[in-house]
Amino acid sequence: MTDEAKESYSSLMARSKEMFVLGSANSILYWDMETKMPPAAQAMRGEQLSALELIIHKKLTDPEIDVLLKRCEGDVNAFDQLQRRNLHLLRKSYDENSKIPDQLVTETAMHQSKCNMVWKKAKAARDFKMFRDDLAKMIDLREQAAEILMKVKGTKTPYDALLDQFEPNMTAERIDEVFAELRQGLIKLIGKVDSCGFKPDMSPMSRKVPVEVQKKISLDVMNFIKFDTTSDKAAGRLDETEHPFTTGTFDDVRITTHYYEDRFFSNVFSVMHEGGHALYDQGIPREWMYQPVGTPCSYGIHESQSRFVENIVGRSPEFLNYALPKFRKYSPRSFKGLKNKDIIAAANAVVPSKIRIEADEVTYALHVIIRFEIEKMIFSHKVTADELPQVWNQKYSDYLGVKVEHDGEGVLQDTHWSGGSFGYFPSYALGNIYSGMFLDKMQKDLPQWRKSVRGGDFSPVFGWLRSNVHSKGDLYDPADLVKVVTGKEVSVTPFLKYLDRKMSKIYGF
Amino acid sequence: MTDEAKESYSSLMARSKEMFVLGSANSILYWDMETKMPPAAQAMRGEQLSALELIIHKKLTDPEIDVLLKRCEGDVNAFDQLQRRNLHLLRKSYDENSKIPDQLVTETAMHQSKCNMVWKKAKAARDFKMFRDDLAKMIDLREQAAEILMKVKGTKTPYDALLDQFEPNMTAERIDEVFAELRQGLIKLIGKVDSCGFKPDMSPMSRKVPVEVQKKISLDVMNFIKFDTTSDKAAGRLDETEHPFTTGTFDDVRITTHYYEDRFFSNVFSVMHEGGHALYDQGIPREWMYQPVGTPCSYGIHESQSRFVENIVGRSPEFLNYALPKFRKYSPRSFKGLKNKDIIAAANAVVPSKIRIEADEVTYALHVIIRFEIEKMIFSHKVTADELPQVWNQKYSDYLGVKVEHDGEGVLQDTHWSGGSFGYFPSYALGNIYSGMFLDKMQKDLPQWRKSVRGGDFSPVFGWLRSNVHSKGDLYDPADLVKVVTGKEVSVTPFLKYLDRKMSKIYGF
Repeated sequence: MTDEAKESYSSLMARSKEMFVLGSANSILYWDMETKMPPAAQAMRGEQLSALELIIHKKLTDPEIDVLLKRCEGDVNAFDQLQRRNLHLLRKSYDENSKIPDQLVTETAMHQSKCNMVWKKAKAARDFKMFRDDLAKMIDLREQAAEILMKVKGTKTPYDALLDQFEPNMTAERIDEVFAELRQGLIKLIGKVDSCGFKPDMSPMSRKVPVEVQKKISLDVMNFIKFDTTSDKAAGRLDETEHPFTTGTFDDVRITTHYYEDRFFSNVFSVMHEGGHALYDQGIPREWMYQPVGTPCSYGIHESQSRFVENIVGRSPEFLNYALPKFRKYSPRSFKGLKNKDIIAAANAVVPSKIRIEADEVTYALHVIIRFEIEKMIFSHKVTADELPQVWNQKYSDYLGVKVEHDGEGVLQDTHWSGGSFGYFPSYALGNIYSGMFLDKMQKDLPQWRKSVRGGDFSPVFGWLRSNVHSKGDLYDPADLVKVVTGKEVSVTPFLKYLDRKMSKIYGF
Repeated sequence: MTDEAKESYSSLMARSKEMFVLGSANSILYWDMETKMPPAAQAMRGEQLSALELIIHKKLTDPEIDVLLKRCEGDVNAFDQLQRRNLHLLRKSYDENSKIPDQLVTETAMHQSKCNMVWKKAKAARDFKMFRDDLAKMIDLREQAAEILMKVKGTKTPYDALLDQFEPNMTAERIDEVFAELRQGLIKLIGKVDSCGFKPDMSPMSRKVPVEVQKKISLDVMNFIKFDTTSDKAAGRLDETEHPFTTGTFDDVRITTHYYEDRFFSNVFSVMHEGGHALYDQGIPREWMYQPVGTPCSYGIHESQSRFVENIVGRSPEFLNYALPKFRKYSPRSFKGLKNKDIIAAANAVVPSKIRIEADEVTYALHVIIRFEIEKMIFSHKVTADELPQVWNQKYSDYLGVKVEHDGEGVLQDTHWSGGSFGYFPSYALGNIYSGMFLDKMQKDLPQWRKSVRGGDFSPVFGWLRSNVHSKGDLYDPADLVKVVTGKEVSVTPFLKYLDRKMSKIYGF
């Protein structure tokens, strides 16, 4: 390697570290805003976050990065695989960030705040018309960015450029194929569930468990999944917010949950879901810290980890049979007269609903497919903002057989579009699909894993996820990672097989 | 005013805002580190804090600031008093920060971390020798900075330059005069207390109050002093740390306290002390936000506010007679068999001790005077690092009549020197002196203030502090502020008179 390439690479890594460090500082400010900040501090926090974001943006788009990258790219074969990946990721980030005009970046950031505020009001008022104009403007702003990004990234359509920000190298065309198969499989499975004659009694889900007891249970659950928030080496925290989230990396990863006395399992599964994200964030190889490769692979892969822990492990009869006796001990009255079997059936019940975040494991992806189809229509101008509620409600009727009564439970239910995050939704269903593929492979590597979970031991699963997924960081694009881990192309079959197997046992078909 | 001066001033204010915003972000990271951060995150947090500090330092010392300042200074009479103060404060900060070589800044910052770590170990081991070399190096580093700052600031001695960082325009010569008088007055008062024959029973101080009850009481106390942490307009928080502190400005000011079951009043007075700081930080005029003038005046004035609320109000018979019945109601058993009079006497007892932070209101300043005298000796080379324990112990014997048994309770007790904060200590006693002067004036403006406090109403005192002290921000140097508020030069007489009056009632002399 030339000295020039070597020095340029070192300099790029130093810059990468600087950006990561400032980014992680920003995450703390964001976490604080959501969990601890006094309410009066909102405006000051806005100033702090934008000041830091501006500094990071300037560093990301510093033309000197382009100069350094070019020096390395001129001698690219002298670098090893990991270094080349770092160069690739920096190049991608530099090109994408520097090609969007500052004016558009600023205008979008400003409109995000406004649009989000208006969305909240419109949702509360259940009135899409209040949101219509600001949403239309947001679509226009994202479309401007997408047109530019399409050229930079070389994607076929502007929407593909948006998708690529969440799921690198994934295209609407490929998602179309995958989702078509997924939709067909899910609808078939819902049909089996519907026609089998058994309907789980849902009342176990609303048994009251005192919040103080639920807090103890959170600790037990985190202990089970090995997310440490209590020891003197802890690299994690748990706090409370209305909408649970995970933030942080490496030695400082924080999750949140919510407690409702009459929705006990909501907390259990939130902690497992966010815990799954957190384990991934903590599990990136330490020697890659502050390098581009030292980050999670994609939104979809991240979601595969949270869903693996929440659904594949958390909602499994094995975990619940292990954990329920412990929960009973804490609060015998809450579970009096209930058999484990009934609780397990209720926790896995398939009930088509109108709200995505309340959906069960089987119908969930249909909510996502609806959003994906609508986003494609938006960015190919096949639907106007005005028509969105109508299109939304029709699809909910067609795919899930539910009647949306008002916009608040319809097109206004999610925050994503108000922030301009078009292309985000597909990651959720891709997460399901990836998790099924990972399960399929893990099943072969660790045939005894269910037995371990039944005995209260998450270590084999933890170890498998760590060495197969977490430890790969951002070394591959998501479809390539799946191939490296499972040896196969992305396929919905394992996920559908997993659901079918589980539901056939619960519903007895 | 010329357009050039006008534009330069606007540009300086924009830069000022940027630096304040980043500084306030840094405060949140610091607060998080002390209160919420998972222990494993220490190293990452170090990276975040230094990255931000470096960015702020670069902005502070950007030569463009000098250019802009010069343009304004060329037309200085066109600016009003407030604008001229802003220019003065920016000029001071620019000159001081830009004249110290980067090498010295970095070396000092690095040595601070090390020195603080070594100090902790040495204190635990009660062994000054472990700390000696690193302290000597820290003294040397600060001396190098002081030599430079002396020239920039035009002070008479290097130590004066250090003092000026905490108490602008205050000199060792002036402090000498003031402290001589203070020392004499305090020793005379201690003599009266000693010879009066009455010794308060100290057992009320160690009555047990359950921590949960103490938490409720914290809320009551904050409610009394009008530090809002609970409403939907709250601009404050209370958390727990071993060593209480206050951080933040304007809409986001956070205090901490500690709870010990058998040291109930420690929490009450911590909350009042930190609350006094917090009210000041919240009370700077909003229209000065992000301007240099929109900051507290000095460490000494800040301390005058915390001590005013903690001691002058909090330890007054009027406040305690108002609050004790409430405390009793929460936990009757804790105060059983005690008269208010006995509790008030114990809470105000004069007992010479070895530890500054545990000292009473009368002996406290003697601890500070000892440190000031030693710092002067250090920076005039009249004492070597080796001799410090011996000098320390001798002064404690001479001034306070106590025998220091080991370095842990002697020269190693405070963290300040390990961080290089020489010149900081005098602010604590100056705070006492200023608080006495403010009280003297408030007594004239609000002769009924004690009656209000006795009735549970802090508003008149709050209003007086806000309009006389808080609202002045950094418009004046501390001695000038005192003059503006009280019409008088800095004098120890009011503080000594206040103590004498209070102690004569409690001790009956």
